[in-house]
Amino acid sequence: MSENTTEGRPGGGRRARGGGGAARRAERTAPRIEAAHFITRNIPNFEVLTQEAIEIVEWNAETVLEEIGVNFVDNPAALSRWRDAGADVDDERVRIPRGLARKLCATAPGHYTQYARNPARNVEIGGRNLVFAPVYGPPFVRDLYGGRRYATIADFEKFVKLGYMSKWLHHSGGTVCEPTDVAVNKRHLDMIYAHMRWSDKPFMGSVTERSRAVDSVRMCEILFGADFVATHPVMTSLININSPLTFDNVMMDALEVYAAAGQGCIVSPFIVGGAMAPVSVAGTLTQVLAEVLAGVAYSQLVRSGAPVIFGAFVTSIDMNSGAPTFGTPEASKILYGAGQLARRLGLPFRSGGALCGSKLPDAQAAYESANTLNAVLLGGVNFCLHAAGWLEGGLVSSFEKFVLDADQLGVLHSLAQGVDIGVDAQAMDAIREVGPAGHYLGCAHTHAHFKEAFWRTQVLDYKPFEQWHDEGAHDSHQLAHARVQRLLHDYVAPEIDPGIDEALQAYVAERKASEPDVFA
Amino acid sequence: MSENTTEGRPGGGRRARGGGGAARRAERTAPRIEAAHFITRNIPNFEVLTQEAIEIVEWNAETVLEEIGVNFVDNPAALSRWRDAGADVDDERVRIPRGLARKLCATAPGHYTQYARNPARNVEIGGRNLVFAPVYGPPFVRDLYGGRRYATIADFEKFVKLGYMSKWLHHSGGTVCEPTDVAVNKRHLDMIYAHMRWSDKPFMGSVTERSRAVDSVRMCEILFGADFVATHPVMTSLININSPLTFDNVMMDALEVYAAAGQGCIVSPFIVGGAMAPVSVAGTLTQVLAEVLAGVAYSQLVRSGAPVIFGAFVTSIDMNSGAPTFGTPEASKILYGAGQLARRLGLPFRSGGALCGSKLPDAQAAYESANTLNAVLLGGVNFCLHAAGWLEGGLVSSFEKFVLDADQLGVLHSLAQGVDIGVDAQAMDAIREVGPAGHYLGCAHTHAHFKEAFWRTQVLDYKPFEQWHDEGAHDSHQLAHARVQRLLHDYVAPEIDPGIDEALQAYVAERKASEPDVFA
Repeated sequence: MSENTTEGRPGGGRRARGGGGAARRAERTAPRIEAAHFITRNIPNFEVLTQEAIEIVEWNAETVLEEIGVNFVDNPAALSRWRDAGADVDDERVRIPRGLARKLCATAPGHYTQYARNPARNVEIGGRNLVFAPVYGPPFVRDLYGGRRYATIADFEKFVKLGYMSKWLHHSGGTVCEPTDVAVNKRHLDMIYAHMRWSDKPFMGSVTERSRAVDSVRMCEILFGADFVATHPVMTSLININSPLTFDNVMMDALEVYAAAGQGCIVSPFIVGGAMAPVSVAGTLTQVLAEVLAGVAYSQLVRSGAPVIFGAFVTSIDMNSGAPTFGTPEASKILYGAGQLARRLGLPFRSGGALCGSKLPDAQAAYESANTLNAVLLGGVNFCLHAAGWLEGGLVSSFEKFVLDADQLGVLHSLAQGVDIGVDAQAMDAIREVGPAGHYLGCAHTHAHFKEAFWRTQVLDYKPFEQWHDEGAHDSHQLAHARVQRLLHDYVAPEIDPGIDEALQAYVAERKASEPDVFA
Repeated sequence: MSENTTEGRPGGGRRARGGGGAARRAERTAPRIEAAHFITRNIPNFEVLTQEAIEIVEWNAETVLEEIGVNFVDNPAALSRWRDAGADVDDERVRIPRGLARKLCATAPGHYTQYARNPARNVEIGGRNLVFAPVYGPPFVRDLYGGRRYATIADFEKFVKLGYMSKWLHHSGGTVCEPTDVAVNKRHLDMIYAHMRWSDKPFMGSVTERSRAVDSVRMCEILFGADFVATHPVMTSLININSPLTFDNVMMDALEVYAAAGQGCIVSPFIVGGAMAPVSVAGTLTQVLAEVLAGVAYSQLVRSGAPVIFGAFVTSIDMNSGAPTFGTPEASKILYGAGQLARRLGLPFRSGGALCGSKLPDAQAAYESANTLNAVLLGGVNFCLHAAGWLEGGLVSSFEKFVLDADQLGVLHSLAQGVDIGVDAQAMDAIREVGPAGHYLGCAHTHAHFKEAFWRTQVLDYKPFEQWHDEGAHDSHQLAHARVQRLLHDYVAPEIDPGIDEALQAYVAERKASEPDVFA
């Protein structure tokens, strides 16, 4: 594992400048912060669709685009672009001749680098790579003693700090929780600033209004320099499709801003199966593919070559209650199948991560999360959103589940390395040395390798029963709570150029002052 | 799923006879007991070893057998068999010429049927099939209110009943917990009787002494008839190898009894990686293969054609504390690799199941269990022991975890079915009917399929937050506890021929009376 890990101290980024004696003292006493390199798989992908099945789904998706079409709502410019590209536009309905969308998708890159302010944290999205980003979107937070409550910007900053401190998260994410104590029209400024200031990992831009996407780009120009942003993706932002087959103008506004700026977007159907798509896996995959084809094609009409990810957020539904359900076999099949369709298109692939429906970070939450996380690794996902912290169907960001999930991501890092078959790993000398009825604890091969031979948790319990019992018989929830406190205590902010920080703060202040608060 | 499920009422087995008015009244009022058919996969296997890696491991395993050899301890008959077969026997060390063990393994069947007293519960072990059996071996039990305590025969019977009531468990298992209140030399009789009487699913025989294996066969002859047992496998029993490379005489005694009787055995290295095998995956796989080759070959020397399973129980170790660890990436890689090696040998493959190190059925237990269970399904496992109830590294059988794990096995049943690509599943009419911006909840396709479209938990929580909160905010542990109580309350014993039952009880009583209790 060590060769796949970059280690740094706070402020150790190559771009970091300045900081005086106080910073150096902090550096000397601070715990070392480890950050794993994004995953590059050395294992095959698991695939559930036969070649015949793929071809049927691809044919049907083109039929959907051609016969039924998709709606671009309140977006005359989009309709005009589609008309010019050769689609049949009828009111807001866009019918796309068979083959046209796929042809337009061909200009989207198969992989791209998203740059971070610390170059050691840059991520390569696509190919055999896998990037983990935390939970996105919940209006509530929960922790062991505070219970469930509306999220605030203080909570948001804590999650950014936990993400920065988490070895196995490669990406700071976006709306790690919704800071409901900040005006709706201004919170994006505080969120973007928090990612820029309290982490040095890559992050996501705002998508909730055209002007907020523009703000995101402007702030990146301050952080990275305008010339750099003009030529390098520094954000990957989440554009949800209003399934079935509908592209609303708010999301398309953001997509247009980001694509025009050469910034990355995830184009993602958002589907609760049985409600926003058919109850069958094959039918859902057909709709997913049709929607992604239309959305990605549209991004290329805005700017040919704009980086874009094939997204799929698909859950199943409990037909008794109508509740969305997570970690289910239907969702896993769709994840595996969508990955195959994305690779056929030559696009990076995004899925969900540690998804669950449970109200608490209990066994249910973990079974459901692990089911999806295992599918993420084996299914060839390139960008995994919600990889840590998701609770209660995405209504809650859980502090404890954040660190529990993040720990499990380490399991996937190790599994992704596959099996070393080199002479030393074959260990024939060790087997000869120990022989029948011996043990390997003391042999030379074990001594040479034991430190890196086995993945080790940073939060779960491995103690003997008696010790565990005497120390309070803590369950995972309690152990995770302690780890959250420890990580936040140990947190030291990455250094930032003071001039850049001032400019960012000035931008935020100016934009906030320019319009009244809106809270609905 | 429905086509893959056999449903029955208590006593509905085809062999069931007798029972009067009381039984019929019980039948009419009893809840229906569902039992899923064993899994036949319609998905590919996931494989981590390249062809080159397989060939290296196979070559090295033969080198181990030829150069280092294996020990058969206190077993002159075994040494004599090996000598006659062409091995180089030096004291208790057996060195096996390259290729000999593999050649001997060739007479072992690639798959076999294990018969149950209810023919609807017969299981086919091998091929693309997967059979789930519960936890095996823990001396302790735990439940939510009773805590952790030594297991009793009353606990044992409860686990057998829970297994019988669990839709997704195909097999009643063996030592579902160790009934420590019964003499060591007699508890096997009570255990075998409990499986025979309180379930109608297939089960495992005793392996802790030659006479106990013989008792297991005798009792099967009473239950099934001696002629039937002579020609049909009615047990699959667990023969652990004392890794590294050692076959102790107690286990070989049991293997010899079962193989000679044509009964199934799992020949299984028992390895805590780093202690009983090298710290590397490739080295461990080499040792696993060498051990299995020797053990399976030996079973064929006892009786050519005896049914036998390639076993692998391999965990990793926490090098800080020496504790075995579960659900780790190293264990998953070994599971995937061992599956490939077993298929190359043409043998059924056995692994562990819902393994975990946690002391409680909490998030840790579930992450770790789900990691292994997902690998079990994708790794081509044919017989999954410990599929439900395992806690605390196998020291504890947990009532609540039993029902939580058993529920998750349902996820794997559905995933194993793969993707239906038939015209109806393509759902093009549904997509046409709903169109952009509609929803599928009311469409014809949904109405036709919603009942079986999605797997549904029988224990986890899918309720809206407010309802969940008002009903007591139960976590998974509490929900599982309630399900355990409900299943035990609803339990109705499968019918059994009263004459057979009397004969079984007489055999147990006679054997118990024939020797004094031993408690060590």
